[in-house]
Amino acid sequence: MSGRGKIRASEFSRILNGVREKNPLVHHITNYVTVNDCANITLAIGASPIMADAAEESAEIAAVSSAVVLNIGTLNPRLIESAIAAALSANESSVPVILDPVGAGASALRNEAVARILGEARVDVIRGNISEVSFIGGLASNTKGVDASDADRCGDAGRIASDLASARRCIVAVTGAVDAVSDGARTVRIENGHPALSAVTGTGCMCSSLVGAFCGASPDTLLAGAVAGVLSMGVAGELAHESAGALGLGSFRTALIDAVSRLTPEELERRARLYEA
Amino acid sequence: MSGRGKIRASEFSRILNGVREKNPLVHHITNYVTVNDCANITLAIGASPIMADAAEESAEIAAVSSAVVLNIGTLNPRLIESAIAAALSANESSVPVILDPVGAGASALRNEAVARILGEARVDVIRGNISEVSFIGGLASNTKGVDASDADRCGDAGRIASDLASARRCIVAVTGAVDAVSDGARTVRIENGHPALSAVTGTGCMCSSLVGAFCGASPDTLLAGAVAGVLSMGVAGELAHESAGALGLGSFRTALIDAVSRLTPEELERRARLYEA
Amino acid sequence: MSGRGKIRASEFSRILNGVREKNPLVHHITNYVTVNDCANITLAIGASPIMADAAEESAEIAAVSSAVVLNIGTLNPRLIESAIAAALSANESSVPVILDPVGAGASALRNEAVARILGEARVDVIRGNISEVSFIGGLASNTKGVDASDADRCGDAGRIASDLASARRCIVAVTGAVDAVSDGARTVRIENGHPALSAVTGTGCMCSSLVGAFCGASPDTLLAGAVAGVLSMGVAGELAHESAGALGLGSFRTALIDAVSRLTPEELERRARLYEA
Repeated sequence: MSGRGKIRASEFSRILNGVREKNPLVHHITNYVTVNDCANITLAIGASPIMADAAEESAEIAAVSSAVVLNIGTLNPRLIESAIAAALSANESSVPVILDPVGAGASALRNEAVARILGEARVDVIRGNISEVSFIGGLASNTKGVDASDADRCGDAGRIASDLASARRCIVAVTGAVDAVSDGARTVRIENGHPALSAVTGTGCMCSSLVGAFCGASPDTLLAGAVAGVLSMGVAGELAHESAGALGLGSFRTALIDAVSRLTPEELERRARLYEA
Repeated sequence: MSGRGKIRASEFSRILNGVREKNPLVHHITNYVTVNDCANITLAIGASPIMADAAEESAEIAAVSSAVVLNIGTLNPRLIESAIAAALSANESSVPVILDPVGAGASALRNEAVARILGEARVDVIRGNISEVSFIGGLASNTKGVDASDADRCGDAGRIASDLASARRCIVAVTGAVDAVSDGARTVRIENGHPALSAVTGTGCMCSSLVGAFCGASPDTLLAGAVAGVLSMGVAGELAHESAGALGLGSFRTALIDAVSRLTPEELERRARLYEA
Repeated sequence: MSGRGKIRASEFSRILNGVREKNPLVHHITNYVTVNDCANITLAIGASPIMADAAEESAEIAAVSSAVVLNIGTLNPRLIESAIAAALSANESSVPVILDPVGAGASALRNEAVARILGEARVDVIRGNISEVSFIGGLASNTKGVDASDADRCGDAGRIASDLASARRCIVAVTGAVDAVSDGARTVRIENGHPALSAVTGTGCMCSSLVGAFCGASPDTLLAGAVAGVLSMGVAGELAHESAGALGLGSFRTALIDAVSRLTPEELERRARLYEA
């Protein structure tokens, strides 16, 4: 994905090795529901998490990080200021910023937060579900917004990702039943994953953390980094289901972290089901 | 429990199937200690959690939810306002409100929060331990409150639940060594559970989440919903102890979520040890 | 460690039994990343956790606790006031105060928080990594602070712990690749542990919780209590690696809590690798 050719799974081996060699510091301003899982999956992939959400220090910490992940899962007005301060600081230091717009479209506070973050700072990667990304897509073209349920009916994750990526000139990853990552010019469909991922809280958040880890290690190839994050989560879901799915959702969750911590470049390559239009 | 006859375990099968068919949205304003477990157990039983605690959005989200769970485990003044706003919104939309008065009696802040929530909004179900519920029982009849240790000596979970339920015209669930759920007229004792449940943080909170899921799916039979929540937690504790108790408390906790995610109506009926006075 | 003689591992058996008999209440003002793990490890060792971070109640709860653990992992200005109020209240009630200065040296907010807590209240035990403790060591002797990377080069955990313990007349525990605990006069090196402990979030925080549990049960022998906390975490890491290390980091984390919940005085004695200079 460094050139115009089709995706080569071998690229993800290089990127995964990069995370483990460089141990990038991934600054999270995130929700208190899944924050522990985000920290543990960041460690499991080989990066280092730091969670610091006070506006009094978020810019200072963003400046020395390798990536900044902004997740609005449990939002409040204090966090919006802190997120913008961190993003602006990251922008100045050329640190990639990943936005996980949890619940965009579900409340005025969330909509305003997303609009302000995107309006006041540069976001390099947006990672959300189809409803959240569709909502933001509406924001980009129409300030009144678009009803997420309308957008859902449009159906095509790849097209939605591509449209928003073009409009905002950033990378967009849509995850769910179908995963798609686009930079506007190129769109990659990822057919890995397992339905149990949607029955454990935080798998979307953890995916954003993985994207942060990969993009932090390889800031010059953000599209490949975002694909690597989504792919790793999907492959981990498959492995976790195989090893622990029959035991139940608690064991599946534990097995997800196990799988990420033991993920090898070879396994990632062998399992990758990537398609480029 | 829909009529005046004795409890039929088959009712809980119907209610559990209802959760899985309707997938109710359970809005939590809860503590940051056990919030991840609350989200995961809500998913495991078949409902959908949403955690949103900002006063700027709590009413908006409560209005579109199927149940609202208010848990004051890590309380602060901001959360009191948010909880009241959510409860009032839920009241307007006929969405059941469950209150978990964590630590009621332990500090002036908690006592004031409980008094304000109960004074300013309608609470449909209170789920607490014997000390917390006894404290609220004192509040209801005597504004000076009652020393929880005095109340503990009274001993009878069923009577304490029944008295508060009558006084407040709501459902009260007391959980601990003995579980009892009452609407004032009827009182059900639940003899399921395992002592290890008290050695894992959040099993009370998770029980409240399950009550929220069941009441959200069956808002017309709140007594049965509250019993189903308490019963499911007790049965899950038994199953988790059988499968993982010997490994230790970490595995027991994982097995709890496993058990809830695999709970069948048949198992729930077969294991239920319910007694109605 | 009650006298001037060398350490006797049997002392830790006595202290562990003390936790399980006395069930000390350990009040935490801590971060939202690892708080659930802190609560569960506190329960697993046999103590009772209470997490209450509002300034409106922190002093009230500290006064009735057996130990207070202050952890600045996800710091904000509100928590600084709450921590100081809790520490002052604990000081008045002769309740030991443990400070975990997470990220000291990493931002002005953290540095100011640590300086204020240490300046305004009495801290009985400081438990941090070598970089954090070195930073505080600089604070104690030099208000401009010392670059943590300089301190790191100094290398000797035992000396760094001993110097700060002497300067501040408290117990200092440095944990990491090498663990050392000192009261200034005596310094104990603990060679238990496993590298996987650094690949799971919160093992430092959990260690501080264990120190809180042991010191809460044995407030007259704080040096021994701090050593017991560090030792227990190290032994649990070894046991968890043996039982689950090959499965991955998710299983290792679960096995850590399993190991603490099943830890016997005999195992603790048998595994202890303690050295006193």
